[in-house]
Amino acid sequence: MDVAVIGLGLIGGSLAQALATGGHAVVGFDADPATRGTARTAAAQAPARARWQVAGRLRDAIAHAELVALAVPLPALPPVLTELTGYDGLVTDVTSVKGPIRELLRQQLPTAAYVGGHPMAGKETSGFAAADPDLFTGCAWVLCLEPRETALPDWLTLARLVTALGARVVPATSAEHDRAVAAASHVPHLLAAALTTAVAGDPLAAALAAGSFRDGTRVAATRPELIAAMCGGNATAVGTALDGVLKTLAELRAALDEPDPATALRPLLAPASAARAAWPVATGTAVEVPWHADALLELGRAGGWVTGVDDERRVLRAVRPETVGGRP
Amino acid sequence: MDVAVIGLGLIGGSLAQALATGGHAVVGFDADPATRGTARTAAAQAPARARWQVAGRLRDAIAHAELVALAVPLPALPPVLTELTGYDGLVTDVTSVKGPIRELLRQQLPTAAYVGGHPMAGKETSGFAAADPDLFTGCAWVLCLEPRETALPDWLTLARLVTALGARVVPATSAEHDRAVAAASHVPHLLAAALTTAVAGDPLAAALAAGSFRDGTRVAATRPELIAAMCGGNATAVGTALDGVLKTLAELRAALDEPDPATALRPLLAPASAARAAWPVATGTAVEVPWHADALLELGRAGGWVTGVDDERRVLRAVRPETVGGRP
Repeated sequence: MDVAVIGLGLIGGSLAQALATGGHAVVGFDADPATRGTARTAAAQAPARARWQVAGRLRDAIAHAELVALAVPLPALPPVLTELTGYDGLVTDVTSVKGPIRELLRQQLPTAAYVGGHPMAGKETSGFAAADPDLFTGCAWVLCLEPRETALPDWLTLARLVTALGARVVPATSAEHDRAVAAASHVPHLLAAALTTAVAGDPLAAALAAGSFRDGTRVAATRPELIAAMCGGNATAVGTALDGVLKTLAELRAALDEPDPATALRPLLAPASAARAAWPVATGTAVEVPWHADALLELGRAGGWVTGVDDERRVLRAVRPETVGGRP
Repeated sequence: MDVAVIGLGLIGGSLAQALATGGHAVVGFDADPATRGTARTAAAQAPARARWQVAGRLRDAIAHAELVALAVPLPALPPVLTELTGYDGLVTDVTSVKGPIRELLRQQLPTAAYVGGHPMAGKETSGFAAADPDLFTGCAWVLCLEPRETALPDWLTLARLVTALGARVVPATSAEHDRAVAAASHVPHLLAAALTTAVAGDPLAAALAAGSFRDGTRVAATRPELIAAMCGGNATAVGTALDGVLKTLAELRAALDEPDPATALRPLLAPASAARAAWPVATGTAVEVPWHADALLELGRAGGWVTGVDDERRVLRAVRPETVGGRP
């Protein structure tokens, strides 16, 4: 496929490299001239069969594109969409929130066919220098499917492309996606920031902090504007998920005031311990799912994922987990 | 030194192996016959110069001990102290809370000289099978120093022993220790449990959970009775530290309700991002600290640590960090 990747940071850079390695004709673009220079050097030095191009202007990058993959941060998206005016091919993105992007596309680029995407891959480092064509191997990659809106053939095109990168394609509506990542990905960043704040003001505590602090706060080192854009762009769902966490923390806080706090804490902690020990769900039953939005969305809600598209038999190869919600 | 290690789980087993490797005469004991069997086999198979013994009874383990290291969980401590009745040598421990242990020792074993200890090392696995003589290399190890209570020569004996294992000795009062670990180590376990609870009930969220969830919840898989004993045994300090975290989370929650949540979140997140990027404090200025409790406690409060004891010059070799509280 002819693919344009707009934005060559960690995700965009990794995606361009992975797609080029997979045999696609990739043209990348980044608004930052220095990033373009670095990417152009790397693209030219890739093995011959994984070589790709970096265009000097966005218009040139999309000139022959059948698919435009938007890999710019949420706040940078509106001006990019303005530059895409008139483009009528397939568009996907990799942004960590899906509802607002879907709305933006509907308003600013109604000519294009949009299938929202979100690879659940990242690092606390960012930028093209951190790009890695293997970043997506084994990761969950949401492809949004809106009943009575997304054209299934477009969704299948993306599913073929993304499963070929080694990712697990998870079908979900944008609303389902935004609720799920609020709890699974956005709230953890806020907890990490709050925990760092508690320890950073006390040199003795910072000196004694070890594994539980190191891991619990790793993502707090992410650039604050990225965390703010991510959580702020999904504020309603993040607020609801954070309320859920705060409710649990209030129960734990109350247990600490009991006459025998250890005994009061134990039953509150036991289900989380069992659930965490059972996570991640690495295996499940291999199933075939018909080419139908409802069946695909049901698979996603059950925690399942698509591993491939069987064009001959018109089914999707998929895995349905044997456990539910991380609980055996 | 003749050292008895009582309790041969992860920490006790590692300590027995590390001390034996360091040339000390070690006798271990565990109340569980199966653990004693496993430990005895491992002790006998160690290289000749790192061989140690496992006694069949606690009395036999401490018969010749100059130092008894208590490595049993907090709830198991009172009966062990009863068995130690009459012992008048040096006692240390490795429990994650220091105030209650100090009180227990004062009541149950007033004949012994007690220097509370806490190596900030651990894994989410436990038991002798997970023991590792290198577990303490580079880790912070609190040795408690109570003004007008701890005999400095006893503290120095422990400091020599522990720095020789490659650990950083952090001087602190038991109250200072308990406040610091509440924030740095106990609260992270409660946050991890609350985050796991939020995600475990939603199979889609569990399927999308990636690095930020994995790291933020790693310690939630710890056995719930261990987390409960740890937090419950330090309930007052943990409650205060958790209140601090909840205050920050309430500010973040309010920012999510602002008309422009991303802009409201950014200044709340920026200090934590800078602090986490500057942590851990790996270096500092090499200093010498006089053999005096106040000077040692001041070093600990500043986030510094002791690396060795210079017996000839009667000073402690130490490192004082150049940054404060993880902030450059």
